[in-house]
This record gives sequence, structure tokens and C-alpha cells, in this order.
Amino acid sequence: MAVELLVVGGLSDPWVGPVVAAGQEAMTVAVVEPDQAVDTSAVRILVGAPPDLAPKIRECPRLQWVQSTWAGVDALTGLVPKGVQVTPLKGVFGQAMSEFVLGWLLALERNIITRANCKHWIPEVEAGISGKRLGIMGTGTIGSAVAQHATHFGLAVTGLNSKGQSVPGFVTCYSNSHRFDFAQGLDYLVSLLPSTPATDGIVDAALLARMNPGGIFINAGRGNAVLNADLINALQQGPLRYAILDVFEEEPLAQSHALKNVPGLFITSQTAAPTPSEAIPEVFARNLSLFLAGEPMPDALCSERGY
Amino acid sequence: MAVELLVVGGLSDPWVGPVVAAGQEAMTVAVVEPDQAVDTSAVRILVGAPPDLAPKIRECPRLQWVQSTWAGVDALTGLVPKGVQVTPLKGVFGQAMSEFVLGWLLALERNIITRANCKHWIPEVEAGISGKRLGIMGTGTIGSAVAQHATHFGLAVTGLNSKGQSVPGFVTCYSNSHRFDFAQGLDYLVSLLPSTPATDGIVDAALLARMNPGGIFINAGRGNAVLNADLINALQQGPLRYAILDVFEEEPLAQSHALKNVPGLFITSQTAAPTPSEAIPEVFARNLSLFLAGEPMPDALCSERGY
Repeated sequence: MAVELLVVGGLSDPWVGPVVAAGQEAMTVAVVEPDQAVDTSAVRILVGAPPDLAPKIRECPRLQWVQSTWAGVDALTGLVPKGVQVTPLKGVFGQAMSEFVLGWLLALERNIITRANCKHWIPEVEAGISGKRLGIMGTGTIGSAVAQHATHFGLAVTGLNSKGQSVPGFVTCYSNSHRFDFAQGLDYLVSLLPSTPATDGIVDAALLARMNPGGIFINAGRGNAVLNADLINALQQGPLRYAILDVFEEEPLAQSHALKNVPGLFITSQTAAPTPSEAIPEVFARNLSLFLAGEPMPDALCSERGY
Repeated sequence: MAVELLVVGGLSDPWVGPVVAAGQEAMTVAVVEPDQAVDTSAVRILVGAPPDLAPKIRECPRLQWVQSTWAGVDALTGLVPKGVQVTPLKGVFGQAMSEFVLGWLLALERNIITRANCKHWIPEVEAGISGKRLGIMGTGTIGSAVAQHATHFGLAVTGLNSKGQSVPGFVTCYSNSHRFDFAQGLDYLVSLLPSTPATDGIVDAALLARMNPGGIFINAGRGNAVLNADLINALQQGPLRYAILDVFEEEPLAQSHALKNVPGLFITSQTAAPTPSEAIPEVFARNLSLFLAGEPMPDALCSERGY
């Protein structure tokens, strides 16, 4: 029987079994490795990581829906025909991202990294993060979760999104075109932005210059948002004291890359918000019932914005 | 005119001026350095750090109230006559302590300390702190604040206090005599206990052995609570993976102290929860109006328990 639901992934991936189980109650299912050939003439649904799905999409003439196992679906940009829905993995990264952002802010502001590597008595106390101003670029489910945790710690949190619409949990939200007002007087700036033409180089010298002296910048969205030369300059000349980069235009970052030898700049390995193993089957099952019922999937991307 | 309110501290300490201002509306005030002589025959109120106040107490025959500028008042144990009220500094350390506890847990569990010191790509992801079990010894205002922040991060938080009374923010509270049940299956154990005879050596081999493998212990209460040899053994033989000690029986910790060379053991410098500079005058002014009105001060210690 021709395959209707094609899962692209390794049989040992923990999410594959539960996704197959959920799917085969409704249709014929196959699992293939990314480079494995399969008859795709009847495939209506693809599930997998965007880079693995990208070459399959044009081979599926009956495709109706793509469930990504990642939050970022920029690897599919320009490949998905109109009328095909794409659902990024949503609503499952807030906890991990909040841990990452608050963990790094606290580790730096409370001198934990220094103290962990020092045997001397250091009685000087730290001011901490309470009362500081945090700006979050990207006010979706991930940004909102981070905003909520930061607010609990006494930070004043503002947001940036494409149209400046207000979002619960943010004191104020600014639009992209008011991004300098947004950045004015921030102590901490966090980008969680997706990769779209509108976010290319949005973190530049002019934006960073609006921040308070001693500022901290964190990029855990996509690498395209940051002009690296401007970031390095802001660390060397001010106002930045520290930056943490989790995402890059090329990953893994080359051992000789200029970003690896900048004082105050820390590198993580796109590890800010890994996918909880149980999340993919949960999200897929929820979206599948909407798909089968012919109901709209709220997670489906708006192709006009590219995410 | 004889001094009624005696402030012991340096004139450059930022809290001294506002405390004097609040006091001199009601009575005669003097400020002295710790080793400076003064006529104390009419002193009704002492304000200062417990070690500075300790030698003054017996010189104040009319003493009615001691406002400590520290949370810990164990330096006054046995020195304060019956009928004299002692108010530790309360309700101002929750934010800083929450930053310290969550900051260290995140820095360790999200590998921030390792990643901050490494230029390599480390794609292995961390499980984080969500769903872990945290036990807090000491369920007063500081412990409750930590419990609240930890609960926001998805931890299950239980508490230990002398009588096992339930406290909002804790799933369950255990009494000292049920401390092994309390410690059973904990991933993280935090002591915020004051120094009293009842807390001496309460963190011993038998207690630590109840924790889960890979556990983390944090002491930010008082050093007397921990049997150091048992702690070192629990780090070397299990179940502990890490420990963070902020308080010690002798401070600063001697450079050659055995605790300084234990793998997995981190030392901070009684810096977990410093006093916010504006807090002392606020707390003093609040207590002063209660004192002048002859009303009970809720912060006053119960001398029977020693804190």
C-alpha cells in the first residue's frame, strides 16, 4: 500500500516510534533514513528535521502537511508549495530557553563562573539581576516563557516583534521599525528571532549602542540576526561587557573562527533549548487530529513571514 | 543628653545615615565605631552587626531591643538578657538567595561553567532542572522565596523545619525528626538553617546517603549544619556530584583547608545573600514604629529556639 505518512529519521530516535504509532491508526506509514529511497507518490504528510525533509519535498506531489521536529524551519524556505502547511515544533522550548537565559545571566552577574574556578575568599558581593532591564527580540511562546521567568526575578521586560503588538508578560512591545527605542537603556538583550529576511543583521552597531554600559547580549535565535563585526566591536569598545552566542550562520563554528577569541564572548553549541524527547510525538499527535478533522493548525507557519 | 539609641557601625556605611535620621525623630541617637567607648547607661536600642554588638550588650542596663543588621544573630547567643527583644534582618534576602541557588543549579546542570571555559563545539544537550526534586532545610522567608522560584522552574520542592508545620510554596514539610524521609530521593538539597544546637551536624552521612545519585548540596545557612568529613565522603563515594558551600565554621576559610581541594566542591565567600543597602533602614524604621507603639515585632526572635 502506498505510503501516506513518511517519517524521516533514525529508527533509534526516541520520537520515531510514538509518531509512527500515532500515525498508523489513521493511514499507511513508513520510516526512512534521510538518504534512503522510497515511493513518495502518495505521501500527504512528512515528519522530520527540516534539513532531512528539504530534498524530499519536491518528490511528494500530494504533500499537504510538513511537521518539523525542530523549532526553526528556515531550511525549508522557498521549498514548500503554496497550500502545504508547515508546523514548526512549538510550545516545548520555553523551559529550556528560560533555564539558558536566566542561567547565563545569573552565572555572569553573580560571578558564579569566576567563583567556580577560584579557591580564594572573594568577599565582594554582587548586585544581582533584580531591577535590571531585559529586552527580548521575539515574543512568541519561547520569548513569553523567558519573560515570565525574568519577571519573577524582578527584571523589567520589554519585547520586540514585527508589528509591535502587545503580548502578555511584556511591559511594552516595540515593532521592528522602533527597535532603537526598544534597545534604549537595556541592560540585557536576548534575540530569539527566527531567520527571515526581516531579521537579517537586525542586531547591528546602531542597536547595540543604545544599550547601557556593561550590557549583556544573548543570541539563541538564529545566527543571521547578528552582524558579528559590530558585536565584536561593541564588546571591545562598549557598551557590551559579555555576549553569549548559541547560534551561528555556519555550525559547528570553525575552530579558527574570529568569534572564538573575543574576551567576554562565550560560545554554546546550539544547545540553549534542545527538544524534550517526549515533545515531538505530543505535538504531532495534537496536530494530526486537527489535520484529520480538517481543522486549522494554530502552529502552522504564515508563509508570508517565512516562519 | 544620654544616648537612648546607639548605632554601632562606620559613618561611611550607607545604612547608618538613614537609621540615625529615623531614630532621632523619637530619641537621642549616637553612632560609634565598634571599638569606641560611649556612655551606654541610658541605651534602650542597639543597632548593628551582631559581632559588633556582642560586647556592648552587657554595658547597656536599660536595653530593650537589639536590631541586627544581619540575618544571622548567633553571635549574640547567650548574651541577651530575658525580656530584651532581638530582631534579625528579615524579609530582604529572598531575591539574592534565589539568584544564588537557581544560578548555581543552572550553571552546573546546564554545563554553563564548562561551556564558559571551552572553545570547542559541545553539541551534547543537558537535561536541565525541570522535574527534579529539591529539598530546602529552613522554610522561613528566605526558604519560601527560593521555593517559589524553584517551583516556577518546574522543580518539586519539599521543606524541613523544626516542627514539620506546612508552609505555602512547599509540597510537603517534614520535621527535624523525620529528616531522613525528607532527604529520601532528593536531587538537590539546600540548607538555609540558622546556627542553633538543633542544627549542629544535621547534614551528615546518613542524611546525604538518602539523596539520589548525582545529587547537589548547597549550604547557604550556617557552617555548623554540615559534618565536613561526611560531605567530602559523599562527594567522593556518592551520592553527591557537586556541593557549593557559602558558609563555614571559620571564615574566611583558611587557604590550606581540606574543603578547598575536593573535586566537585565549590566555595563561595558568604556572598550568597548580601544585604541590599536600602534594606536595613527600611526594616529598622518599620520595627521602630512598632517598638514606639508598644506593639509586638513579628521579626523578634524566640530565645527558646536561639534565632
